[in-house]
Amino acid sequence: MAETLIQFGILGCADIARKVSRAITLAPNATLYAVGSRSLEKATRFAAANGFPPSAKIYGSYEAVLDDPDVDAVYVPLPTSLHLKWAVLAAEKKKHVLLEKPVALNVAELDQILEACESNGVQFMDGTMWMHHPRTAKMKEFLSDPQRFGQLKSVQSCFSFFAASDFHENNIRAKPDLDALGVLGDTGWYCIRAILFAADYELPKSVRALPGPVLSKAGVLKSCGASLIWEDGKVATFNCSFEANLTMTVTAIGTKGTLQVQDFVIPFKEDRAAFSAGVESWFNELVTGWRTMPSEHVVTTDLPQEALMVREFSGLAADIKRNGSKPEQKWPTLSRKTQLVLDAVKASIERGLEPVEV
Amino acid sequence: MAETLIQFGILGCADIARKVSRAITLAPNATLYAVGSRSLEKATRFAAANGFPPSAKIYGSYEAVLDDPDVDAVYVPLPTSLHLKWAVLAAEKKKHVLLEKPVALNVAELDQILEACESNGVQFMDGTMWMHHPRTAKMKEFLSDPQRFGQLKSVQSCFSFFAASDFHENNIRAKPDLDALGVLGDTGWYCIRAILFAADYELPKSVRALPGPVLSKAGVLKSCGASLIWEDGKVATFNCSFEANLTMTVTAIGTKGTLQVQDFVIPFKEDRAAFSAGVESWFNELVTGWRTMPSEHVVTTDLPQEALMVREFSGLAADIKRNGSKPEQKWPTLSRKTQLVLDAVKASIERGLEPVEV
Repeated sequence: MAETLIQFGILGCADIARKVSRAITLAPNATLYAVGSRSLEKATRFAAANGFPPSAKIYGSYEAVLDDPDVDAVYVPLPTSLHLKWAVLAAEKKKHVLLEKPVALNVAELDQILEACESNGVQFMDGTMWMHHPRTAKMKEFLSDPQRFGQLKSVQSCFSFFAASDFHENNIRAKPDLDALGVLGDTGWYCIRAILFAADYELPKSVRALPGPVLSKAGVLKSCGASLIWEDGKVATFNCSFEANLTMTVTAIGTKGTLQVQDFVIPFKEDRAAFSAGVESWFNELVTGWRTMPSEHVVTTDLPQEALMVREFSGLAADIKRNGSKPEQKWPTLSRKTQLVLDAVKASIERGLEPVEV
Repeated sequence: MAETLIQFGILGCADIARKVSRAITLAPNATLYAVGSRSLEKATRFAAANGFPPSAKIYGSYEAVLDDPDVDAVYVPLPTSLHLKWAVLAAEKKKHVLLEKPVALNVAELDQILEACESNGVQFMDGTMWMHHPRTAKMKEFLSDPQRFGQLKSVQSCFSFFAASDFHENNIRAKPDLDALGVLGDTGWYCIRAILFAADYELPKSVRALPGPVLSKAGVLKSCGASLIWEDGKVATFNCSFEANLTMTVTAIGTKGTLQVQDFVIPFKEDRAAFSAGVESWFNELVTGWRTMPSEHVVTTDLPQEALMVREFSGLAADIKRNGSKPEQKWPTLSRKTQLVLDAVKASIERGLEPVEV
């Protein structure tokens, strides 16, 4: 039986939509079918520049994409403040929803989106691409191995990039009416997801923002951090910033092993990605060096992680379309947990760095 | 003129004294001259096993080492609670003092030690060996470079090792009457020093312990962490633990550059050590990989870092002995700053994680 090809419509022409359009082209079970923008001219230019086939539908509004009965799924890279409206509408029109992160301004909004997807039987997935890299599965194997990693004790994550001064004036991620979560919703989202990933998605008991959150003139977070603690005593910290050189690290330490990765969100190279695994690391006899050193693990991939994301999403959508299956709950659950922690960090910042229960 | 050879006496036969005895042998301007233990038999065994020359003096007490007029300098690897007494006595006997870390139980004690060294004109240095590795100087060059690193924004450091259960019963570092600072004085000392190193030794404005400090049954810290913040808004966090796999990382992020090191306290190999330097790191055009990746810098060394420490210390001692120079203030100053931050972290833990001014 031929694979069902999921026909994508894209809402808006955000920069990130260029990368995802290519991913849809690369994924074997998905195809670029439509794009809509408030400007028909912009949509036309976008389609021409991003590999849309000549038969693709070019629309001058988001609604028109949702009204096209041949659109199976939408990719929504709109500013966060517009997610609630357009993701709910898409679900109501029975379109599967691939939603850029941060998925919503808060978990109450996200719950409305998830409820709309659930009641309309469509698949929901957020755009956290690194979840789909085969390296991530290999890292999970290591973290889950009681012999090599043991019990998780702590995680540290950091994701910063240096934004030029015009970013704080012009970029969506720096505008309070568009992306009110600022750096916390942008790079902080990934740090939180990485910490939850290492903790096997167990939610922390409480969260406390770290001293020194920085707001832009417009009142949007430019830098912040938080500490997290779980019932069993394991701890995590993260730092996210628009004010420091591009850095994206995760260090997860268990009783027996240590995982380190330097490019967890976007691997240095598209076709391979590495992580370092230390197992029962120890010194030589005189403590002048290490007897057991961390080893480097390289994982290759035939498709870039964003194409693997589209493939996974489209496979689930196809299964629903063809077989009447239920949507996969894993993906909305992960989005919701990430948003819950993010909301708690935001609340802690707003309450003068008080601890906040999750 | 032949180089002045500094004659070392060692107080006690701690495990770490084996490594430092070898370092004294390796340093061209130092020699193993005496060792004292409360047990003459133990001192004799130690001298035989650690390359002391046949002419070396073996004493059945620490006092006897200090009373030997031919001892120029002492290395003091005793438990922290004994540092005040023996370091002050050594200084009063005009011996230069190489003191293991943590240098004292608190800064008040340290000030008595430093005052004794100052008033007796002897050199003080703590045993933070990694300060003397040529890699450290190379890292400092990078951190100080406004073109490559820019302005420091954040530092994260972690140093943990997994102690078997008998460690918490038997090891000096787990006994409240011997090393009351526990992991904070042991691996935490190094994290604090690394953070200060990255901050060019500017003291933070305040310090706040992170949630989840863990105490042993005996009441000694087994795991803890803290966040630090400076007047200019830069921030740091560290985690130290006796309960998680051996890991020793520093990540320092500036506006332009990122420094990362995975083995900062004890390099993987004795003859070379590496760090990673990212400079104006950025993505490729479609954000599917990195256009500018961090580069690996390897620094070789002829002598292990502990021998370089002994050489530096002995050179200063020789300069005092030969030329009547003043002791070098850099080393006591660094010890004192480290102890000040350590005291603030301890105070924050004792005060229920309240912020503490430094």
